[in-house]
Amino acid sequence: MEPQHPGGNEPYWRSAVSQVTPEKVFVRGYDLEDLIGGLSFTAASFLLIKGRLPSPQETRVLDAVLTAVLDYALQKPGTVAARYVVSANPSMVAGLAAATMAVGKHTLATEDTARYITSTHARFQESGKDMEAFAADEVASMAERRQRIPGLGHPVFKRVDPRAAILRSLAVDEGLWTEPVRLYEAIHRAFTARPGKSDIPVNDVGVMAAVLVGLGFTPEETTGLAVISTLPGVVAHISEELAAARPLRIVPDRDVAYEMAGDRDFAADLKQAGWSAAQ
Amino acid sequence: MEPQHPGGNEPYWRSAVSQVTPEKVFVRGYDLEDLIGGLSFTAASFLLIKGRLPSPQETRVLDAVLTAVLDYALQKPGTVAARYVVSANPSMVAGLAAATMAVGKHTLATEDTARYITSTHARFQESGKDMEAFAADEVASMAERRQRIPGLGHPVFKRVDPRAAILRSLAVDEGLWTEPVRLYEAIHRAFTARPGKSDIPVNDVGVMAAVLVGLGFTPEETTGLAVISTLPGVVAHISEELAAARPLRIVPDRDVAYEMAGDRDFAADLKQAGWSAAQ
Amino acid sequence: MEPQHPGGNEPYWRSAVSQVTPEKVFVRGYDLEDLIGGLSFTAASFLLIKGRLPSPQETRVLDAVLTAVLDYALQKPGTVAARYVVSANPSMVAGLAAATMAVGKHTLATEDTARYITSTHARFQESGKDMEAFAADEVASMAERRQRIPGLGHPVFKRVDPRAAILRSLAVDEGLWTEPVRLYEAIHRAFTARPGKSDIPVNDVGVMAAVLVGLGFTPEETTGLAVISTLPGVVAHISEELAAARPLRIVPDRDVAYEMAGDRDFAADLKQAGWSAAQ
Amino acid sequence: MEPQHPGGNEPYWRSAVSQVTPEKVFVRGYDLEDLIGGLSFTAASFLLIKGRLPSPQETRVLDAVLTAVLDYALQKPGTVAARYVVSANPSMVAGLAAATMAVGKHTLATEDTARYITSTHARFQESGKDMEAFAADEVASMAERRQRIPGLGHPVFKRVDPRAAILRSLAVDEGLWTEPVRLYEAIHRAFTARPGKSDIPVNDVGVMAAVLVGLGFTPEETTGLAVISTLPGVVAHISEELAAARPLRIVPDRDVAYEMAGDRDFAADLKQAGWSAAQ
Repeated sequence: MEPQHPGGNEPYWRSAVSQVTPEKVFVRGYDLEDLIGGLSFTAASFLLIKGRLPSPQETRVLDAVLTAVLDYALQKPGTVAARYVVSANPSMVAGLAAATMAVGKHTLATEDTARYITSTHARFQESGKDMEAFAADEVASMAERRQRIPGLGHPVFKRVDPRAAILRSLAVDEGLWTEPVRLYEAIHRAFTARPGKSDIPVNDVGVMAAVLVGLGFTPEETTGLAVISTLPGVVAHISEELAAARPLRIVPDRDVAYEMAGDRDFAADLKQAGWSAAQ
Repeated sequence: MEPQHPGGNEPYWRSAVSQVTPEKVFVRGYDLEDLIGGLSFTAASFLLIKGRLPSPQETRVLDAVLTAVLDYALQKPGTVAARYVVSANPSMVAGLAAATMAVGKHTLATEDTARYITSTHARFQESGKDMEAFAADEVASMAERRQRIPGLGHPVFKRVDPRAAILRSLAVDEGLWTEPVRLYEAIHRAFTARPGKSDIPVNDVGVMAAVLVGLGFTPEETTGLAVISTLPGVVAHISEELAAARPLRIVPDRDVAYEMAGDRDFAADLKQAGWSAAQ
Repeated sequence: MEPQHPGGNEPYWRSAVSQVTPEKVFVRGYDLEDLIGGLSFTAASFLLIKGRLPSPQETRVLDAVLTAVLDYALQKPGTVAARYVVSANPSMVAGLAAATMAVGKHTLATEDTARYITSTHARFQESGKDMEAFAADEVASMAERRQRIPGLGHPVFKRVDPRAAILRSLAVDEGLWTEPVRLYEAIHRAFTARPGKSDIPVNDVGVMAAVLVGLGFTPEETTGLAVISTLPGVVAHISEELAAARPLRIVPDRDVAYEMAGDRDFAADLKQAGWSAAQ
Repeated sequence: MEPQHPGGNEPYWRSAVSQVTPEKVFVRGYDLEDLIGGLSFTAASFLLIKGRLPSPQETRVLDAVLTAVLDYALQKPGTVAARYVVSANPSMVAGLAAATMAVGKHTLATEDTARYITSTHARFQESGKDMEAFAADEVASMAERRQRIPGLGHPVFKRVDPRAAILRSLAVDEGLWTEPVRLYEAIHRAFTARPGKSDIPVNDVGVMAAVLVGLGFTPEETTGLAVISTLPGVVAHISEELAAARPLRIVPDRDVAYEMAGDRDFAADLKQAGWSAAQ
């Protein structure tokens, strides 16, 4: 793909997030001096990303999402990666970046679920169908194409993931169990009606994605919020690692099977690979 | 430096941040299910990092610090770096990591100021001196060694940086203007008593660092919190960039002076560098 | 997805890349002391990734791939991102990481092309068809499904991309224009036989991917090599930026249209959003 | 620190690394089409960073440096971090960025040694002293200030680090054992003349730094080259991890001592922290 070059005097960038004057910073049109201490960090995050002040209900629900997966001990790859990084390069910033890079396909994958809910909801609105009927058709069609519905299933919990249930209940109480989320739930109902599937719950990442879509966030924004939600835990782990002052973490030999061909003959193999003398 | 190898049966890792059982996650000893929706994200961040629940006062002050530098338009290098990154690799995670890596010496450098306050406060406590006297000596000694006191000065604001003033006032009101912070302020007073320095304010990064040290955070933890505080703005900018769908941002030619020696003769220069034919 | 826990005494890790003893390092079974100065970096890279010594022919072809896209001025987003990052955090490592994260969908996307060639070649081998016939069917089938064949097309070059032509010619000369690559070329021929497509060349990224697949690299490994190939240029740019000592690069205001709603009334909007007094 | 704003029509960027026209790319003034296959990747890296073609001798020495620390099994934190990252986010780019960020103070720290050699050499040139006399004074002065000379010492090797010896010998043979390097060696001699120090060798990182300074690279550029030199090994490890298809690597419980205060009472502790009901 080729970069796009700007025309003559057209500004190359556009932005509506904030603006800086010599004496003031305006964030989404508000004077930053009003916001400092005037909004919780959670409410300020909503404002920055969505461009408008959240209601108290929206703020409470967003706070719940941001506290839903606070930490997962040394069983989250990004946390472990961050600790290895800072054991070599004792920099908070390097550790946080490493943990951030570890969010993806296999962990905190709210983006896939959010994209599924967003696009399915758009198809539902076009369909003119009843929600339960649409959900049943959707589940049948996914099954036929052997596609997974994202956000379902948990290795331990059957029927209900308790963290997911708390989030759901909170969103319902605050009046933020919106249509896309209800559609996703209808799809889950249709899914569990299939033989052998009655036990499968919506998991915590699934509900996080659903609630965030319900609050109006794009799939990519849900990833951004998921990353932010895990970083205080990573700060705590990095701080613990720096305090341990154990430079250069390794994987202890007892945990590794090294499976290398024994001592190979470099000169002989080089000759066999077609090299005359040295290269 | 050489990696440290673990002895026989000694566990290689230690952690007190969280613990996972098949059905529960305990965060700093609390059941995660109690925390979801039971704490704001700001309070949960304090808990994760410091290991104890914050008071309402501490939470309000931390919220103020986390909202003190929410965004800085396209005048913050990390934000711009993130937008370039996602224009090539449309991944929220890659953009956030790039913005994180851009926090350092020249921007959001709370760590230097926090380290200065922490170590100076330790020397103050050992000194047995009166605070004003210690501060005067410290400023004289720094001046003699031609060392900068970190966290002072602003390109626009004279005497007072309004963002810094709001943060300070909030911390005072909440009873969290603690001894290390008062010492830093005494040092600032002694500094501005010197000829030609009366105009120099404590800047926003300086007060952020001071307040966070006052709340008990280590210098590295202040960096972690500073990074987190800027990420919602970065999410907003990345989202804007992805929506603009302008792949492969470049620097427009009109903004660059390319200063390269003209068309060089490769074959001739290769020969002159001592290469016979090809390599 | 749930982490996999190791059983009792089973080693949790396996690796065949290298092994360390107190006095020796063995790389793919060879004593590192033999390799230092005994192999070019390019040949050593091949050994590390593929596990065997390359022939002189393979080394020359890999060198050609690694020099095919050395630098692209300030028209490569990763380079620009790296310069912004180090203008704030003057760290070589931070800049290189930022440039690395900018390799993806829209740039240096050898991985997509490599994956396409690898999987198409597997289907070809199973098909038992003649290569030209298979290629014609493949192009027809891609067109019907409205799918793009990756690695084709260039914004400037018609019929032939000269960099691609050099790489191809070199690989042919060295006897490394292997079956998967010839298949890709047959597909390109079938594609250009379609009306209105006769001008479309295989581009440089397309040939890089094809040649690397022909050398036996996996799609992910082609990305790794593409990243490495661009890093010396990034080192040069970071070095230039650090020497310029121009802290905190911004986007000049003349290049930005800030499109923010003017000065909004925080107190009024807060009330309207449902907040009683402060939060 | 405040960003620097450009004046009226002054170009905001300057670069001499490469230049792009619609049909050509010029790298340090050479047509890229001449370089593809016309230079080894090692020679091209030298050209990009230093701006001139290297001699065959310089290329051989740079190749030796780039192959001096090819891989270090699962005893290099960056490699392990990369494998954890891709077990969660199966992306080559994310893994390489994580490994890059793990280069720092405690590992591959050529930059510190290079900076020491560069600045000491500058002081030597100004001093007008004899090299041995300067070295003796330098060692005495470092000892008095209790400062470490970087690049010396190894946990296993006494007197000689064999990898370092190979690199040194190669640089001497190629006539590239330049004055800064000889000065560093004189300092090492003076150091080992002190009581109890006779066993301390220059280690591999020390010689890498010295040789690269001798070739004319800046301290930051030595870091860049050190990073590049380790990335093929990281590609190999990431490829191994992706092939193992073991999603979500953790630290096995048998390797961790979790040291958390047991089940704490959230409601009681919240009250004690000063919260009335919920927040």
